[in-house]
Amino acid sequence: MNKAREFDQTVAAELKALLGERVSTSPAVREHHGKDESYFPHALPDAVVFAKSTEEVRDIVNICRAHRVPIIPYGVGTSLEGHVLAVQGGVCIDLSQMNQVLAVHESDLDAVVQAGVTRKQLNEHIKHTGLFFPVDPGADATLGGMAATRASGTNAVRYGTMRENVLALKVVLADGRVIRTSRRAKKSAAGYDLTRLFVGSEGTLGIITEVTVRLYPVQEAMSAAVCAFATVDGCTNTVIQTIQAGVPIARCDLVCDITIDAINKYKKTGYRVAPTVFFEFHGSKASVIEQAETVQAIARENGGMDFVWATKPEERTQLWQARHDAYFACLQIRPGTRAVSTDVCVPISRLAECVRETMADVKNFINPVPILGHIGDGNFHLVLLVDPNKPEETALAKQFNKRVVERALKMDGTCTGEHGVGMGKIGSMTLELGEDVVGIMSDIKRLFDPHGLMNPGKVVPSR
Amino acid sequence: MNKAREFDQTVAAELKALLGERVSTSPAVREHHGKDESYFPHALPDAVVFAKSTEEVRDIVNICRAHRVPIIPYGVGTSLEGHVLAVQGGVCIDLSQMNQVLAVHESDLDAVVQAGVTRKQLNEHIKHTGLFFPVDPGADATLGGMAATRASGTNAVRYGTMRENVLALKVVLADGRVIRTSRRAKKSAAGYDLTRLFVGSEGTLGIITEVTVRLYPVQEAMSAAVCAFATVDGCTNTVIQTIQAGVPIARCDLVCDITIDAINKYKKTGYRVAPTVFFEFHGSKASVIEQAETVQAIARENGGMDFVWATKPEERTQLWQARHDAYFACLQIRPGTRAVSTDVCVPISRLAECVRETMADVKNFINPVPILGHIGDGNFHLVLLVDPNKPEETALAKQFNKRVVERALKMDGTCTGEHGVGMGKIGSMTLELGEDVVGIMSDIKRLFDPHGLMNPGKVVPSR
Repeated sequence: MNKAREFDQTVAAELKALLGERVSTSPAVREHHGKDESYFPHALPDAVVFAKSTEEVRDIVNICRAHRVPIIPYGVGTSLEGHVLAVQGGVCIDLSQMNQVLAVHESDLDAVVQAGVTRKQLNEHIKHTGLFFPVDPGADATLGGMAATRASGTNAVRYGTMRENVLALKVVLADGRVIRTSRRAKKSAAGYDLTRLFVGSEGTLGIITEVTVRLYPVQEAMSAAVCAFATVDGCTNTVIQTIQAGVPIARCDLVCDITIDAINKYKKTGYRVAPTVFFEFHGSKASVIEQAETVQAIARENGGMDFVWATKPEERTQLWQARHDAYFACLQIRPGTRAVSTDVCVPISRLAECVRETMADVKNFINPVPILGHIGDGNFHLVLLVDPNKPEETALAKQFNKRVVERALKMDGTCTGEHGVGMGKIGSMTLELGEDVVGIMSDIKRLFDPHGLMNPGKVVPSR
Repeated sequence: MNKAREFDQTVAAELKALLGERVSTSPAVREHHGKDESYFPHALPDAVVFAKSTEEVRDIVNICRAHRVPIIPYGVGTSLEGHVLAVQGGVCIDLSQMNQVLAVHESDLDAVVQAGVTRKQLNEHIKHTGLFFPVDPGADATLGGMAATRASGTNAVRYGTMRENVLALKVVLADGRVIRTSRRAKKSAAGYDLTRLFVGSEGTLGIITEVTVRLYPVQEAMSAAVCAFATVDGCTNTVIQTIQAGVPIARCDLVCDITIDAINKYKKTGYRVAPTVFFEFHGSKASVIEQAETVQAIARENGGMDFVWATKPEERTQLWQARHDAYFACLQIRPGTRAVSTDVCVPISRLAECVRETMADVKNFINPVPILGHIGDGNFHLVLLVDPNKPEETALAKQFNKRVVERALKMDGTCTGEHGVGMGKIGSMTLELGEDVVGIMSDIKRLFDPHGLMNPGKVVPSR
């Protein structure tokens, strides 16, 4: 733990006066909040506070600012790049008790939620309306966290990421002001796009306390399928041709043979051990049949074997749950390890090439490396398993990640399609965007957070 | 012309050394560049320069900055809120000669263009690829201008606005640095969203010189139709129910009876003079038939009369050209007048109410007021015709606009759905977003443009 400042006991006293029991400095609570799903060494906050309202968040920020104490927002800790690690100590604001769905505007296809509402909670809440919220990063993350990291996931190929699906935000700024970034109209040309500036800012510019998200009508027909291929190339080419044909596919994820094997063992499923694409089609009954026929024909030409269908809702849920559990299934390939997860995203014309070169490159890693991802967007992940007690393994994984990032950048891709920058990708930002752009981001950071207290050490280098 | 500074002849000399013949201080050229399609009094730049490359734009910016001369980017002058008016004099950079399509990545569904390429030019250029660029504000605007104003138009209900359809920008900053805001990957979580910050910044933060836009496959089937209704309420309710039913309609625009009559006279067309909705459906053949049947049933229940179909490409083009000419047709209702165009956008559940109250309000205007718009997004326009020589008429129109804005804001809407802030909506920004948000926008402006030279007097108040 690289803690720069001593924690001031008067801060704890002021926080306790504000929140009573909802302030904790216990080692267990701090430990729980000092880690995420990433491979980074834990970094504990000095205190954890549980906020229940925007006003409380504001008051906490005011106390911390007065004492120059770092502030780290925390949802449920599912980030993958060390986003919630208190690398300079400070106060972790746990927002999970801000879990009220404030409004569902069925006719407008939107909902206003507190930041601690999770995506599954929202979907459960609106089930009776015939609407759903599509953004689905796998983990049952909070919508505040998803907005903060610009999350996406399996449905993004059709419904977009948090970038496209956040209409407005309520944000507590470092100086204690509370702003609402936008009205609820579906589109607006009213000035600089502050909503999009906060989406993806990872808690470094302000703390998101409310999120207005877009909802979509559940389509008349939805069906999912898995299709195994002889090669990963067959998978990528099928998806590339599907996108280029303009099929409005809802989901299309690659899961390699190593991953399938891990899923089968972890979930006791019986998928054929081969490179596989998980598909889902949404639309009217006729449209779903048309889409599926088009994709089956494309798959067949690329060495696809039979489509195995899941049409009942519970079957579909099981299938995608298996896909979402792939990360945890892969961790079991070497129990006790942590994963360094790569996250490049390339223009789809370069996807097959990028995946092929990357697979050849990781052949010599410690163990077989699972590859999976949202290839309809050109986004894929390697799961590089490392023993946390062997720093040389993490170093090796980072070298592979550096090479896959360099490869993706040469193809006009990005170092992170969806996981965010956090601590793990800061080093790649200059390579990707250049010194000037990183400098501008640092200037923006300084404008919003002159004392460097808002989730320091993430997105841009600490001063 | 409210010109704050004397134009320095050494600036003209330096510009001429750089650009030779492509510098003009002639009254005719300055007059042409000192106005847009809005009702604002003309405000002429001191000089107009015609740039051919990003490097030239950079050199022009460096010259202007050294002499503290304002810089106004100019595409083809189709803005509606005074965006290009040189209210403090200065140098207008005409980008229309930067009209090269730099790359079309058919497989990736994107294109990279210079800022002066117009949307029709791009669509003509890519016609053979089976792809198209959907954003369509009516005017054949430049893509740089459309990005700068966050334009949208008839297709936005399905394909989104420039916010969703710009992947990356090349921008010349006020300090002469040239940045590229993002890579070409379809999604990215790499830091603050500078692309979206510049989309809609109206030339006040930097000058957009290249735009990377998303393209879409031309769908197998496209058909357009017009349907007349007994009342405007019938139109709005039909569209609201269509959106809520999840029909992926490509276009659905309201054109009121006054507008239809004006179009018939201006275009010699024979549309039934009644409140009308123009529809367009995109998809597979089966899907288009399904969509049309659903919408026809909804229309029938809301008093819709027969659908008149336009299925051939040239018929469709004619139909939408008629829609796009509505603005100019309306100007002919009172020849010699200019239009104060309102642009509110509300959550769709409030659309019918907002339109109804607004129509009642404008009953007492000087002449019957046309109402039209992209009602699938909740966005509609009044065309308030005013005699430019009678300031009391402009004042009256502004009062009506103020009331429609207040009405929209009460419904959680925005003062501008697509025209942008320019000069005309600055006064509404605080009402819509609050002093803190407007203050933050001013801070961002100052960060990017410390000398206040980039298109001064637009988006945020001049200092």
